[in-house]
Amino acid sequence: MSVQASGDRREQPIDSNESLKDYMDARRPAVEAALQAACEDRPGVPERLAAAIRYAVLAPGKRLRPMLTIMAAEACGGDAESAMPSAVAVEMIHAYSLIHDDLPAMDDDDLRRGRPTTHIEFDEATAILAGDALQSMAFAHLHHSTSDATKSAALIGTLATAAGPAGLVGGQADDLDAEKYTVEDFGGADAALKHLEAIHHRKTGALFTACAAMGAISAGADTNAVSALTDYAKAFGLAFQITDDLLDCTSTDERLGKRTGKDDGRGKLTYPGLMGLDRARAHAESTIHMAHESLQLFGTAGQRLRKLADFVLERTN
Amino acid sequence: MSVQASGDRREQPIDSNESLKDYMDARRPAVEAALQAACEDRPGVPERLAAAIRYAVLAPGKRLRPMLTIMAAEACGGDAESAMPSAVAVEMIHAYSLIHDDLPAMDDDDLRRGRPTTHIEFDEATAILAGDALQSMAFAHLHHSTSDATKSAALIGTLATAAGPAGLVGGQADDLDAEKYTVEDFGGADAALKHLEAIHHRKTGALFTACAAMGAISAGADTNAVSALTDYAKAFGLAFQITDDLLDCTSTDERLGKRTGKDDGRGKLTYPGLMGLDRARAHAESTIHMAHESLQLFGTAGQRLRKLADFVLERTN
Repeated sequence: MSVQASGDRREQPIDSNESLKDYMDARRPAVEAALQAACEDRPGVPERLAAAIRYAVLAPGKRLRPMLTIMAAEACGGDAESAMPSAVAVEMIHAYSLIHDDLPAMDDDDLRRGRPTTHIEFDEATAILAGDALQSMAFAHLHHSTSDATKSAALIGTLATAAGPAGLVGGQADDLDAEKYTVEDFGGADAALKHLEAIHHRKTGALFTACAAMGAISAGADTNAVSALTDYAKAFGLAFQITDDLLDCTSTDERLGKRTGKDDGRGKLTYPGLMGLDRARAHAESTIHMAHESLQLFGTAGQRLRKLADFVLERTN
Repeated sequence: MSVQASGDRREQPIDSNESLKDYMDARRPAVEAALQAACEDRPGVPERLAAAIRYAVLAPGKRLRPMLTIMAAEACGGDAESAMPSAVAVEMIHAYSLIHDDLPAMDDDDLRRGRPTTHIEFDEATAILAGDALQSMAFAHLHHSTSDATKSAALIGTLATAAGPAGLVGGQADDLDAEKYTVEDFGGADAALKHLEAIHHRKTGALFTACAAMGAISAGADTNAVSALTDYAKAFGLAFQITDDLLDCTSTDERLGKRTGKDDGRGKLTYPGLMGLDRARAHAESTIHMAHESLQLFGTAGQRLRKLADFVLERTN
């Protein structure tokens, strides 16, 4: 069974030989153009602030969140164009969270995507303000780019909840706090693992889940489809975080474009630290299997989302 | 002529002897209760983050922005209850901006409303995250508390634009930047004054303007009323900033509950610094006169807003 969006849009047939790279390369120019347009100079925005916003948003990146948003919309019979406001808004929230996470008072990182972090390239005050501005811009962009008020309200509500204290921000607060504890404080590895999973469901999972839900909403999908995609994105986000921890252990600064080995140096809770490398890799695999399961509803329309899930595993090989 | 909101709400007759204090005392309990409810513990919010959010939002304050929002709604024939989601959302944005403005990398203030600032009471990372969370919470709150999607979208659009890089955040960026310049850099006091006014129209004016517009929108007012209230709030905000500068010159730390004399110490551009105390006071008076002019449309329904404008002047006497 495949899912159709309400309205008269038809599901596009997907070439079964299409690689994830082909797909992403095909979608990327429109995503980059939309991000660029959303960060263009506007009257009344101080120059240095505008430059910092552009620096952070237009940094080279995989655009995983916009891609997930668009894929979710397409899996529901929607198209990239109508999902684009959501794709831009989630990337703005992601960019703001990276700027603030990198600040000296937070993770204190000087390198991100192979370039100096925003507070290094500009200054700390400008970085704080650029992050703050990007959060408002995400909501303003959704408002201005969505003419259907009911849809606009649902998209804004979904994103605001995901970005808030029980989502993205709460996960980051927990994450900083977790550095203060050792496995023993939690009463053993199992309890520590449970805690780590709760952190990541917020810190990484909440925004991925919003991407999938917003893509589906923008396509006018029904609640079954929104809920299945939410399950997919939750598993996807968790696997993403496990493989991120794995990469931090096994990769080099050059390959990742950010400082590696930092987690271990700070005694931070990680999956490989708690489970060992092999079990952590197996856990990522079984989580991706769950992501696949959630896509049954979509039949062949879920093919790209399956490939995206597999990509998360492949990056650690 | 007085303005009626669409719908069947009737303008309440206002007792002409009612003082501003009577009015504010009557409205305050509902405002405080709404703020408290909006900051209540929610599942999934880390405890320390929730405590910092409550600390910042529930600090004793005049609640000028919520009051302005409710007054604007009432002047359009609406009521406090339907304006409350907007009143809470603007206060959340205000609270977030104060937390971030006070950070060491920004204005570096340790005292606010007579208490340690959030990063002093908690820590810098928690303060950054509490501010970030409050911004999302403002939009989530508007979404969840407004059942009419068209109204909700208009309110969110208004607030997101006011809070963004051409509004509140832009004004703060300009303000930090202005510390680097002297009057001579601008080519004289008149040009510097123009620059200062542009900063304040953003930094203070944008949010006051959003309060008035959102109050009017929540009451279902027509565009004439929204526009008149926007003019009022712009003048009100400017007068507020001039008198803030005056208070910084003439008041003591104890009376204001925050550090005074800081502006002068940092060589910051201020109205008294550029115009002298007497001319700055006269400028505040003529600006308040403009605020009164904008209220003609509202007849007796504008009475409370007139008293609120006068209050801004009185606080410097």
